[in-house]
Amino acid sequence: MARTGRIGEFELIARYFAPLARGFTGAGGLKSDNAFLSGDARHDLVVKTDTVVAGVHFLGDEKPGLVAAKALRVCLSDLAAGGGTPFVYQLSLALPDAWTEAWVAGFARGLAADQRRYGIVLCGGDTVVSPGPLTVTITAFGKVPRGRGLTRAGGRAGDELWVSGTIGDGALGLRAARGQLMSPALERRFRQPQPRTTLGVRLVGIATAAADVSDGLLADAGHIGEASRVGIVIERDRVPLSAPARRAVTADPDLWPEILGGGDDYELVFAVPPRRRRALLRAADAAGVAVTTIGTVGEGRGVRLTIGGQPAHAPRRGYVHF
Amino acid sequence: MARTGRIGEFELIARYFAPLARGFTGAGGLKSDNAFLSGDARHDLVVKTDTVVAGVHFLGDEKPGLVAAKALRVCLSDLAAGGGTPFVYQLSLALPDAWTEAWVAGFARGLAADQRRYGIVLCGGDTVVSPGPLTVTITAFGKVPRGRGLTRAGGRAGDELWVSGTIGDGALGLRAARGQLMSPALERRFRQPQPRTTLGVRLVGIATAAADVSDGLLADAGHIGEASRVGIVIERDRVPLSAPARRAVTADPDLWPEILGGGDDYELVFAVPPRRRRALLRAADAAGVAVTTIGTVGEGRGVRLTIGGQPAHAPRRGYVHF
Repeated sequence: MARTGRIGEFELIARYFAPLARGFTGAGGLKSDNAFLSGDARHDLVVKTDTVVAGVHFLGDEKPGLVAAKALRVCLSDLAAGGGTPFVYQLSLALPDAWTEAWVAGFARGLAADQRRYGIVLCGGDTVVSPGPLTVTITAFGKVPRGRGLTRAGGRAGDELWVSGTIGDGALGLRAARGQLMSPALERRFRQPQPRTTLGVRLVGIATAAADVSDGLLADAGHIGEASRVGIVIERDRVPLSAPARRAVTADPDLWPEILGGGDDYELVFAVPPRRRRALLRAADAAGVAVTTIGTVGEGRGVRLTIGGQPAHAPRRGYVHF
Repeated sequence: MARTGRIGEFELIARYFAPLARGFTGAGGLKSDNAFLSGDARHDLVVKTDTVVAGVHFLGDEKPGLVAAKALRVCLSDLAAGGGTPFVYQLSLALPDAWTEAWVAGFARGLAADQRRYGIVLCGGDTVVSPGPLTVTITAFGKVPRGRGLTRAGGRAGDELWVSGTIGDGALGLRAARGQLMSPALERRFRQPQPRTTLGVRLVGIATAAADVSDGLLADAGHIGEASRVGIVIERDRVPLSAPARRAVTADPDLWPEILGGGDDYELVFAVPPRRRRALLRAADAAGVAVTTIGTVGEGRGVRLTIGGQPAHAPRRGYVHF
């Protein structure tokens, strides 16, 4: 039904979303129902869908540009774990009843900035109004050389386990965003994830298995273990922490379970045979991303945590995320 | 957070959704973050995302199997308009806080039935819990011969305008579902759309432009007109009606605006040059779908309605659908 003073769906699309699809012919200017993606025998498409809900996956009053960045980047993080180069995306936007054009304009500006940053283009989607909270679903497409995409399966006994960047900043950043911890740097990490797109694409042919750290390091390493049918040992003291996270956990060691088990880091965790260690370090250097070996892949099943080499109780938090 | 007596996300996926992905290797049993779709130089992928919200796009207390069918079929209807053969789909399920496993089981059974019916397989997605109403987003993928997919653009002056099946049953079916009209047949049409997948794929090389009738016949014909930069004339007395719709509008001629302007028919409206009329009729026959010519494509812009050849006032309903 028409609402006085607000524009309709078609005008909304024409004004804010069609400009985001300009760089991709197959989107047809968003004037048709469908997008068309040309086949290419040398590549596979890597595809991932993620949904974020206001008040669940981001703060209910988050700025529209940051909502756009979060929705897009959690998907790009998955593509990175698959070894994909970002290509195009579909957007479904369920706006709350009280949506405003200013909000949509800010959201579209956020998407535009990330399109430039990650070289990705809108190719289609849907816009609805819902009595519920703002809900954004993005299906992102990447390209990966044919048959060489990375999955959680493929890790082998003898591989080393690596992570990119630093771990725990997402969970501690949520605390910071809620005012429970004082750290603008950590808060920024939570609000604006930095998907490791430059590293992921370079792990093709190097890593045997990979996942992004979205459910928590222990849970995501566990997913690799399950899919690869291997056991994983992680040494806590090797897990790389940012300076503010190090300070926080030194002051309060009870934060360790959140660091290892909380989610939203959007780093990569991956298995690499020792003979490819040098190739990995070169790739990480080219990607401009630090990588750290934090454990080993072996026989057996499950994730075991050691502290200074001694078996420790692995916190379970993060295994269940709804 | 874990909820007593209910299973977690990973178990939900393993129990109800992984079985739906068995037929597609690229889904990796839903054990990795991503799906991988192999490129193919002879085809394009046709891609469409649609979101349906409980209480907005289907009745809030709709049976889970019918919710699944509706969510999937509105997408398949778009693929049909693009000339695509259904291939795989991604599913994002935002469950309300009070979700039950029985509901998810019924929803998955509905998907399984439609997967068999339309030859489509789940390839990935996301599941979240939301404080809002049940929201289902599906991104469906079809295949179409390279560069030959149908869009709303391409219609030319001199083409004839055609529709599949019967028009108005969706809008009248909503009335029936609300108890405002007595017709089990129309109610079924609203609750269980029948996307014209067998016809759409056969319109490639025959139709110059196509859309599905989801916003209402006049609006969707208007979209073709705009994208093709042509004017369209529709003769109301040629618009094919089902027997119950004919009875309803004979009893109450005020229903005409709903028939022509309401949505949810999920028929196809398309333009065909007169010289391809015979090819169209053969295609429709092979598809097992009736087609009717309802108007003409000409110079100018906009959609004009005639009744018995005389210019009439075209109802505007349907142009704005939120």
